[in-house]
Amino acid sequence: MLKIGVDAMGGDYAPQAAVKGAVMALDAVGPQSRIVLFGDRTKIEEVLAAENCPAGKFDIVATTEVIEMGDHPAKAFQAKADSSITVGFGCLAKGAIDGFASAGSTGAMMVGSMYAVKPIEGVIRPTISSIVPTVGGRPALLLDVGLNVDVKPEVLAQYGLIGSIYAEAVLGIERPRIAILNIGEEETKGNAQSKATYELLREDGRINFVGNIEGSHIFTGKVADVIVCDGFVGNTVLKMAEGLYRINKALGGGNAFWEAMNYENVGGTPVLGVNAPVIIGHGCSSPLAIRSMILSTERCIQADLTAKLQRAFKN
Amino acid sequence: MLKIGVDAMGGDYAPQAAVKGAVMALDAVGPQSRIVLFGDRTKIEEVLAAENCPAGKFDIVATTEVIEMGDHPAKAFQAKADSSITVGFGCLAKGAIDGFASAGSTGAMMVGSMYAVKPIEGVIRPTISSIVPTVGGRPALLLDVGLNVDVKPEVLAQYGLIGSIYAEAVLGIERPRIAILNIGEEETKGNAQSKATYELLREDGRINFVGNIEGSHIFTGKVADVIVCDGFVGNTVLKMAEGLYRINKALGGGNAFWEAMNYENVGGTPVLGVNAPVIIGHGCSSPLAIRSMILSTERCIQADLTAKLQRAFKN
Repeated sequence: MLKIGVDAMGGDYAPQAAVKGAVMALDAVGPQSRIVLFGDRTKIEEVLAAENCPAGKFDIVATTEVIEMGDHPAKAFQAKADSSITVGFGCLAKGAIDGFASAGSTGAMMVGSMYAVKPIEGVIRPTISSIVPTVGGRPALLLDVGLNVDVKPEVLAQYGLIGSIYAEAVLGIERPRIAILNIGEEETKGNAQSKATYELLREDGRINFVGNIEGSHIFTGKVADVIVCDGFVGNTVLKMAEGLYRINKALGGGNAFWEAMNYENVGGTPVLGVNAPVIIGHGCSSPLAIRSMILSTERCIQADLTAKLQRAFKN
Repeated sequence: MLKIGVDAMGGDYAPQAAVKGAVMALDAVGPQSRIVLFGDRTKIEEVLAAENCPAGKFDIVATTEVIEMGDHPAKAFQAKADSSITVGFGCLAKGAIDGFASAGSTGAMMVGSMYAVKPIEGVIRPTISSIVPTVGGRPALLLDVGLNVDVKPEVLAQYGLIGSIYAEAVLGIERPRIAILNIGEEETKGNAQSKATYELLREDGRINFVGNIEGSHIFTGKVADVIVCDGFVGNTVLKMAEGLYRINKALGGGNAFWEAMNYENVGGTPVLGVNAPVIIGHGCSSPLAIRSMILSTERCIQADLTAKLQRAFKN
């Protein structure tokens, strides 16, 4: 049995959207998977009743507190010891669940990732990533998307290996092509950080490094499956894509490529480099977005991603 | 009389595209404007004849050499003393023309900007910028888009003033809103560079600083008219926009917003902070793109942009 922990109290429209999303995920998860909801038992059961869904379809871990968006993440994580996120991470750390997902406080999710499940030994800085659609249909992985800025080249170089393992294990891409986001294709282009990272990635025999990728090719799929960048740049790319998606939608331009850009289909942001699968959802997650988030958590668990990362960094 | 210098030999499809674009611009430039073509007189006149355009509509400055894309910019600028770009900058420096535009070697155009017309006194680093469309229809200015990376906060802060003067003088935006591209709206967000720049911009009473802008709002027009960023980030934004424009076009999604993103309508990249209007066009410029480039050069001249920048940095 594989247990997917889900914060029923996380996100702007929780618990309704979170619980509805969990119901929507029921048919899609594997027969060996069980969704474990963390939150206010009464409220969860109310939503389930309204959805005509028997409460027995889920495990429920009753909690009495909620970390709000306005709370100081680290303080609230400690002070609200019976919050859905704190309890969820407690269960994750002791192995009672196999992964944990929430559309709640990103800060609290990071506190839990760093202090409850902790970075994998050898990983300098865990990272958050995003799956980006490509025209070819095969997704690519962009990392970091905003957790770490001003990082050393050694940190960026580790993203290459982390991303390679994720792309192979979870996205099913054989020998994924790893590139560094840069302002030119040539080896000599870039800023101090990207040039130094280029040297490190080129020397890393464990990955299939293909060189630099320019902004124009992020979404073409022609150059790379894993795109490594500083969190400042990655966050800008991700938010710009979201902004253009919304503009495009408002202007009536719809097609499969742009729909794949919709955060509701993306399935949240994996925290990579910590000792368990953790997925952070968009604050304004709809039920569909919660469903996608649960499914990507399941994929990380099924792929045995954490063990693969741990092994890679042991050496 | 206002003289717009145009490199007839610059760009992948020169001289045909360049000369055709100049012909297309004839009806659009003002009655006091004269287009001066730099290049191979015979070839220019051949294209004009094929277009049924009398050669007398233009001034032609005959040159015998061309700086190729593969040439070393600085070396070629000196060695090919009779190249269209070198001669163009010579005329610009001595005031024989009022602005110079080329879709040729970007490197050679920068060499000419820095060594022939030279940075404006007080400007630490001249910059290249791009006009980006917004949903509201009013364009915004993004700078730097790839010339300067790893810059000091003082350089970014100057972009604020340079952009403000450009937006007001050339784009006709009153009291333009200046923002710094960042990974959060809050003042405390960002990397070391953006945080330090924030402090400097906030203290600059000459501009209307509105704080941080996230990637999601670059194209909405809701937050800022001038978006300041490091050249690494700006280059990525610009190329990503170009890439998505092409994807969108290929998928058949067309509308006014995306058409405004088309480089052919953008009018090239102004080099800002040097002692004369210089505009660099896209290497693959079509005649329409050349026409737009010529018109934006004319606007910079008419707006008396250089004098305004010089005055602002005198203090």
